[in-house]
Amino acid sequence: MKTKYPDPGLNHLKPTKIKTQGMLFENALNITNEYYRIHNRAIIYKKPTPIQVVKVEYPSRNKARIVEAFYRTPSTTDYNGIYRGKYIDYEAKETNNLRFAFKHIFPHQIEHLTKTTEHGGIAFIIIYYKKVDEIYIIDINDFNEFYYDKTREQSISLVLAKEIGILVPQGYTPPIDYLYAVDYYYFKK
Amino acid sequence: MKTKYPDPGLNHLKPTKIKTQGMLFENALNITNEYYRIHNRAIIYKKPTPIQVVKVEYPSRNKARIVEAFYRTPSTTDYNGIYRGKYIDYEAKETNNLRFAFKHIFPHQIEHLTKTTEHGGIAFIIIYYKKVDEIYIIDINDFNEFYYDKTREQSISLVLAKEIGILVPQGYTPPIDYLYAVDYYYFKK
Repeated sequence: MKTKYPDPGLNHLKPTKIKTQGMLFENALNITNEYYRIHNRAIIYKKPTPIQVVKVEYPSRNKARIVEAFYRTPSTTDYNGIYRGKYIDYEAKETNNLRFAFKHIFPHQIEHLTKTTEHGGIAFIIIYYKKVDEIYIIDINDFNEFYYDKTREQSISLVLAKEIGILVPQGYTPPIDYLYAVDYYYFKK
Repeated sequence: MKTKYPDPGLNHLKPTKIKTQGMLFENALNITNEYYRIHNRAIIYKKPTPIQVVKVEYPSRNKARIVEAFYRTPSTTDYNGIYRGKYIDYEAKETNNLRFAFKHIFPHQIEHLTKTTEHGGIAFIIIYYKKVDEIYIIDINDFNEFYYDKTREQSISLVLAKEIGILVPQGYTPPIDYLYAVDYYYFKK
């Protein structure tokens, strides 16, 4: 388990309180990943939302129009790709409360992230606590210590996130610089 | 550029001519990836098909029904994941002819695969030549030698695939054992 940034050097990382609020978290992440791709830092994409297509019409020869479909449960997580030669995989969550309840993430997504680390990948959950406009990444193995301990409360409070997570700097370019936190946790010397 | 398997030892890899035909190539690949996951060899998934949702109805409180939507062009490739600690990414293509024409793959997909290798990932195209029931993986850098050479024919013929690609064994468990070819090309001693 890692602690948060040591106070002295990284104080400039305290959230600026003005960036992500008002922008959808997912949208801000997508812009961030686009920024990373443009600057060739990482190749990370959001996976499309899985949809079960039931009925398709063809109003013209080369344009299919889906007229009946349903959302499906995703098999895996929202985002994956490659960073510093490593496979990276994460799920993004936001909460209006000062705690993120485990019931808001699928057990098979936790298993997927856990397996990812077993295969040598980087896997975490990134949680946006809207009320305080703070974002943390929590490594899946650190997360699991609480997730699988049924004697504890089944959530990650903001207080706990500060303890076991890494604070993600927010700004304009990119809006959510989570690779800074990834560097700190996974690549620091 | 790599050559195909040396003849003597790997003759058992010659296609068995009975497996993939009749099963959709994509379906056979999905079953293969499920097999790999169950046996914990790799974690590789097909990405969902991207769909632009235009209109959703809610016939009941907890069931959204999509009543208007369109297929979108995929940003990346069909499949990605992690294998032997490495990021792996590929596009699957099939052809009814004895050549795979470059016009059937998006230029941005080629660029995505090329960038993947620049970041240290494994990236290739897997091509199913239906007529002869043979499957080859072609590393993106080998592919690019022909793709970007506009003096040549803009396709990969079966003959060329035999030369620059790695033959993929077909069987029952899994139907398309492409990691065997990946091992041969990317991990051989």
